Amino acid sequence: MRKAWEENFSKNIRDFKGYSIGKLLQYVKDPDIISFAVGMPSPDTFPRELLKSASERILREDIDHVLQYSPIPGEESLFESIIDFLKWDNIDIKKENILITSSGQHGLDLVGRLFLDPGDSLILERPSFGGALVAFEMEKPRFIGVDLEEDGINIANLHKKLEESKSGAIPPSKFIYVIPDFQNPSGITMSLEKRKGLLDLSYEYDIPIVEDSPYRPLRYRGDSIPSIFSIDQDRKGTNVIGIYTFSKILTPGLRVGFNIGASAVIGKMTNIKEANLLNTPKWNQDICAIFLKEIDLDKHFKKMQDYYRKKLEKILTALDEYLGTIDGVSWTRPDGGFFLWVTTPPSIDTMKLFYEAVEEKVAFVPGEASYGENPEKNHMRINFSYPSEEQLVEGIRRLAKCLKRHI
Amino acid sequence: MRKAWEENFSKNIRDFKGYSIGKLLQYVKDPDIISFAVGMPSPDTFPRELLKSASERILREDIDHVLQYSPIPGEESLFESIIDFLKWDNIDIKKENILITSSGQHGLDLVGRLFLDPGDSLILERPSFGGALVAFEMEKPRFIGVDLEEDGINIANLHKKLEESKSGAIPPSKFIYVIPDFQNPSGITMSLEKRKGLLDLSYEYDIPIVEDSPYRPLRYRGDSIPSIFSIDQDRKGTNVIGIYTFSKILTPGLRVGFNIGASAVIGKMTNIKEANLLNTPKWNQDICAIFLKEIDLDKHFKKMQDYYRKKLEKILTALDEYLGTIDGVSWTRPDGGFFLWVTTPPSIDTMKLFYEAVEEKVAFVPGEASYGENPEKNHMRINFSYPSEEQLVEGIRRLAKCLKRHI
Repeated sequence: MRKAWEENFSKNIRDFKGYSIGKLLQYVKDPDIISFAVGMPSPDTFPRELLKSASERILREDIDHVLQYSPIPGEESLFESIIDFLKWDNIDIKKENILITSSGQHGLDLVGRLFLDPGDSLILERPSFGGALVAFEMEKPRFIGVDLEEDGINIANLHKKLEESKSGAIPPSKFIYVIPDFQNPSGITMSLEKRKGLLDLSYEYDIPIVEDSPYRPLRYRGDSIPSIFSIDQDRKGTNVIGIYTFSKILTPGLRVGFNIGASAVIGKMTNIKEANLLNTPKWNQDICAIFLKEIDLDKHFKKMQDYYRKKLEKILTALDEYLGTIDGVSWTRPDGGFFLWVTTPPSIDTMKLFYEAVEEKVAFVPGEASYGENPEKNHMRINFSYPSEEQLVEGIRRLAKCLKRHI
Repeated sequence: MRKAWEENFSKNIRDFKGYSIGKLLQYVKDPDIISFAVGMPSPDTFPRELLKSASERILREDIDHVLQYSPIPGEESLFESIIDFLKWDNIDIKKENILITSSGQHGLDLVGRLFLDPGDSLILERPSFGGALVAFEMEKPRFIGVDLEEDGINIANLHKKLEESKSGAIPPSKFIYVIPDFQNPSGITMSLEKRKGLLDLSYEYDIPIVEDSPYRPLRYRGDSIPSIFSIDQDRKGTNVIGIYTFSKILTPGLRVGFNIGASAVIGKMTNIKEANLLNTPKWNQDICAIFLKEIDLDKHFKKMQDYYRKKLEKILTALDEYLGTIDGVSWTRPDGGFFLWVTTPPSIDTMKLFYEAVEEKVAFVPGEASYGENPEKNHMRINFSYPSEEQLVEGIRRLAKCLKRHI
């Protein structure tokens, strides 16, 4: 009889523990806890009636196809809708540049699998999205972090890292992973100047950029900044791989997203998808296609922006009120997305604070889950999309109470 | 600007081409072609009304949850339904022994990723399922094939391979992959005696068995043989990992399946799923749960068995009639499932024959796609679940015409 399964596991996976945030969520099951920890959209923004009627129609008109195997790269109608949708964002691509994925997480896993061998490096922002970290971590890479400034990745430091790579001081990196709009976890948006500077370095050092864009239409103030993908296209480049998902702009429950990029990249990712999933379910894809085609997207996004803008303003006011007087505590003021980032004095370990906060019936994600290497321990990721406006205020009040004990 | 993406790709993936069958399907788009190539169930077996009403109910009663993120391991109601469902097959497991997957292909990928490092070996049947081969191939393993006999894997040869592994003559294998019931591609079913013998070797050499069971309830004649998982349980073992899918017993379009096994294995696979997909969509899981709970499964399976049995009888009669007189041509006579296996004289290369067959408006899968190493070229995988009864007869007539030119 088998006892020691672990000995059979692969070297890459043996020590792999998954996402530490997932483990923390067991502590926030108590319904009295106000959770800033999850990254869920509010169901108030779901176009429920459209989705119900779309489903009813799909099943009435095309049930035998909906329930059958469907093409590995994706459904024709969804490709068409995505091509149109991206034109709105000044991106002009063909079908061969798109792969439908079974969520943004799947899209990130395809990136890791396509590029990374154990010991390979990749460059990413400090902090970065924990879900991307775990997807890449399965390939046992080395993470090279470049700090974020108020207007995005520190280009001078990035340049330095690339130069060190070139000279052999650190291992060369396979790609640079960034979330330019309303970054998860920091809420920071990369300036146009830095997007251009990042592309310059991408060309100079011949290194691809992976641009993760889950929140892009969810801007609550200020003007939209061109995506790195579109700037690259304007400059006749093909250096950018874009990761998109319907999770934040429609609903997460469909588990549909798409990757875009050079056909050589998309073709190879399609081979991987064939072997790791075969196809994304057609019902789920058809709902997304109907959403893109039939809803008034401007109106839909405006409604979402208005809804989340109010929450953002509410939480920023509460932060000013309850944390504004605490020495050494600061936070970002995002222009969109779902998250902001609170920094505490370095003496505070937010992982320890987490358990105290749960006692006070409030939860957040300790910042240390957001670093590939050398985690900083004095940050908190705060989600403001899911809690109600009342909960946002009361949650920050509770959090301030915990913090004040230590400062 | 980037030209040579390939140089950036990982070593595992650089030469990975995906599933060769997928590439062949472009040749069979002509609607006049009778295709024995695909492995699709017939939509005539889909419980369409149940699925429509289940969907309508799920969206009416619980839309906000259906459209939200859901638990990584799977939905509670589906766990319960699966636990009950497997009792029907003498398998008694708990929630901790189940991971909901986003299809059988996903389930196989989780196996490959959990166990295989580049250069590791695995043992599998000759021939075996091409989809499993590509899932495992992404980890660059060495395939060790053991030939199939009429009653399943050759136990004496398997014993020999395990002994060679032990002595260091060939690399030790991480697991043994088998499809005991109505194997894809051969249609062969493993005898009870061999299932027991396989388990004996699994215990003796401390090597896990991966049992893939997509077709198990689809038996058209003869008595059901206990699954290897259930025999292992009876013997108080935990050596077997079971791979299941709703694709063949309900519909492939939902992309839902499940893996079962020791909690140490399922827990680690759950970590991988978290990083490579996050969760399986709830709508799709809820439909499966309602199917298992609310349909009369005995009646549903009997209806499917009656439907496919007629097709099996039809194609076997056609084979006798059109190929029975051709020297050196033989085929398997499956008791269930979707496929049978035609063997031609060794002088025939069925990959070459494929293109001739397409000219004659008939298609099949050349057998060489079904081997991990040293492919045999004189076999064809013939699917009988999807074509109509008329197409089955006419298709075999056309195939015989092609074959006769070469014999």
